[in-house]
Amino acid sequence: MEIICNQNELNNAIQLVSKAVASRPTHPILANILLTADQGTNKISLTGFDLNLGIQTSFDGTVKNSGAITIPSKLLSEIVNKLPNETPVNLEVDQNSENILIKSDRGSFNLKGIPSDDYPNLPFVESGTSLNIDPISFLKALKSTIFASSNDDSKQLLTGVNFTFKQNYLESASTDGHRLAVALIGNEEYLKNIQNKDNLTSDENDLSVTIPTRSLREIEKLVTLRNSENLLKFFYDKGQVVFISTNQLITTRTLEGNYPNYSQLIPDTFSKILNFNTKRLIEALERIAVLADQQSSVVKFKLDNTDLASISADAQDIGNANESIPVSYSGDDFEIAFNVRYLLEGLKVITSENVILKCNLATTPAVFVPEDNLNSFTYLVMPVQVRS
Amino acid sequence: MEIICNQNELNNAIQLVSKAVASRPTHPILANILLTADQGTNKISLTGFDLNLGIQTSFDGTVKNSGAITIPSKLLSEIVNKLPNETPVNLEVDQNSENILIKSDRGSFNLKGIPSDDYPNLPFVESGTSLNIDPISFLKALKSTIFASSNDDSKQLLTGVNFTFKQNYLESASTDGHRLAVALIGNEEYLKNIQNKDNLTSDENDLSVTIPTRSLREIEKLVTLRNSENLLKFFYDKGQVVFISTNQLITTRTLEGNYPNYSQLIPDTFSKILNFNTKRLIEALERIAVLADQQSSVVKFKLDNTDLASISADAQDIGNANESIPVSYSGDDFEIAFNVRYLLEGLKVITSENVILKCNLATTPAVFVPEDNLNSFTYLVMPVQVRS
Repeated sequence: MEIICNQNELNNAIQLVSKAVASRPTHPILANILLTADQGTNKISLTGFDLNLGIQTSFDGTVKNSGAITIPSKLLSEIVNKLPNETPVNLEVDQNSENILIKSDRGSFNLKGIPSDDYPNLPFVESGTSLNIDPISFLKALKSTIFASSNDDSKQLLTGVNFTFKQNYLESASTDGHRLAVALIGNEEYLKNIQNKDNLTSDENDLSVTIPTRSLREIEKLVTLRNSENLLKFFYDKGQVVFISTNQLITTRTLEGNYPNYSQLIPDTFSKILNFNTKRLIEALERIAVLADQQSSVVKFKLDNTDLASISADAQDIGNANESIPVSYSGDDFEIAFNVRYLLEGLKVITSENVILKCNLATTPAVFVPEDNLNSFTYLVMPVQVRS
Repeated sequence: MEIICNQNELNNAIQLVSKAVASRPTHPILANILLTADQGTNKISLTGFDLNLGIQTSFDGTVKNSGAITIPSKLLSEIVNKLPNETPVNLEVDQNSENILIKSDRGSFNLKGIPSDDYPNLPFVESGTSLNIDPISFLKALKSTIFASSNDDSKQLLTGVNFTFKQNYLESASTDGHRLAVALIGNEEYLKNIQNKDNLTSDENDLSVTIPTRSLREIEKLVTLRNSENLLKFFYDKGQVVFISTNQLITTRTLEGNYPNYSQLIPDTFSKILNFNTKRLIEALERIAVLADQQSSVVKFKLDNTDLASISADAQDIGNANESIPVSYSGDDFEIAFNVRYLLEGLKVITSENVILKCNLATTPAVFVPEDNLNSFTYLVMPVQVRS
């Protein structure tokens, strides 16, 4: 194999695929990047794969001889990164050995590769369901819910985000058992006009997949990086999804099983409706969190017949914090307490100026929704019970 | 005690002094910041002190009642940092308890302090030697040598940088036993005209102090932050130095004992003189380091009668790297090897376009000096012996 390519293009491709290279590989070859070159098309292709997440990207170069080899990812990445910008890089592999020679006008490097025959194949999905998805919508669905998934590997399905592709919109959901985030992304007018929640009930024909949060964090970076307005092609089959865009392919296994029927967790009616300025509420919670985080991260809301809500936290033997912020609320006096970290994570994905908090009792689920598009995002949080 | 001050000024003062608050304090009060307020002058003063390094700063505010209290540093820092920018902050301490009340127009906080009586006094130097020093020169002397000091606490004096205040210049030096950095900072013309190195021999009357590297790293940040052109006042007495500038005081213990007579380590004559472009040499070494760092960090220089020096590194079973860079050298063929990390650290403080490497044998000390001002900086490195 022999190729000549641009340092920047090679460097970008390495940075991209190395996100799918295992940091603690179970087999030496999984610490490597697969490089293939095709003389016919002058295409150079790089692949990283940790057996769960796989990333493949290709770019144009001069391919003097076709071939394939796997190269230690970390070493290759550091070497190419330090070569002068935008200069040509020559990469040659000895036909009878796995010796790789990298040459630029500044220095030359010899590395030992591993034959590509031993590299696992990326799981290509050939049959199954396929869809075209808008990367911006997908990214929004992902960012709105990913924080609420569980970090506890024993929780299986809950360590992922569930995506349901419906006719007029994309629905994403995640929960760790303490809170639940549900986002509906699609035509805004359409979503605003959904009056009857039963319209949102799953259709048997909707495609529903649960993708591991770890893979999604890399997919999030990749889709953000590309910042493309082109459609992503999406394939799903046999516990595997594949995203394909120009010159790039991402594959990840899915979490199999029926995702919990979360819509039944959201109460239909609420006796108390509170309206806050979102930014003001976040800032107050961040201040109160300084004290709350000293112990149990519990923050208490106290409502009475004034137009101020009192938010407070107590850390025994350390101190306490209290702040009153404007609220629109009419109803009985009441108190409710939450984990301040859960509140902040959910509020930070709400972009509307005002946020509505809907509750019944201090012991039953509370729900936050954006005032400007009530159906677009639902964040359910279980209150914390505190002795008064 | 009761004060009203600006959030920004209080925040900046806290960030500054908290650098001297121990992260793992040996006594609870050392996790606190001392705050004192004087009604007569309307001065508010903050102090952090880990028993080695002490920082004190003061600013103007409204002092309604004089007093002093110590406040948990981390908590105070987080609270004040999250209060709205540039707004007034009110801080009150109950006369009969250590309850601290912090109020702003956004929320209020109650904290428990510790009485200031238990806070250790900063070691003020009242007698001893005093000097006025230029902060820019001091910073340059510090940055040019600090990297060569030892991290090994058992090496005592070598864990600091030695400063000698001479009549026409400031000399700084540090060594960890493998390399030695010496900087002379002062009148450039004067330094260039030093012909006879014996003129540089220490004078009995010169003030020589060794300051711990850990304290210097904080002092470096502080002096850089202030970026002031005012002179620093410098006091030295009884194992303690104090730097004083407007509204700010830094104190640190010194390392006692006679710093090694390092000038005798530097050979008087050299048989081989090599001249490199500094930037080109650094860039080549950084590339070669990728391979060198895989094993022993050893990089080999090979000189012959061409005008190129070959720089290379070998990592067994992994690969090797080689680069040839222009050199001005006339002499016998020879090889010499170094720890690439030592070379890079020293070369990075050399600002001149070209750097001169002076050697005798592959087993005797080599010296790097900047071409444009030979006396201003000397970096001695012991070569690594390699079997060929």
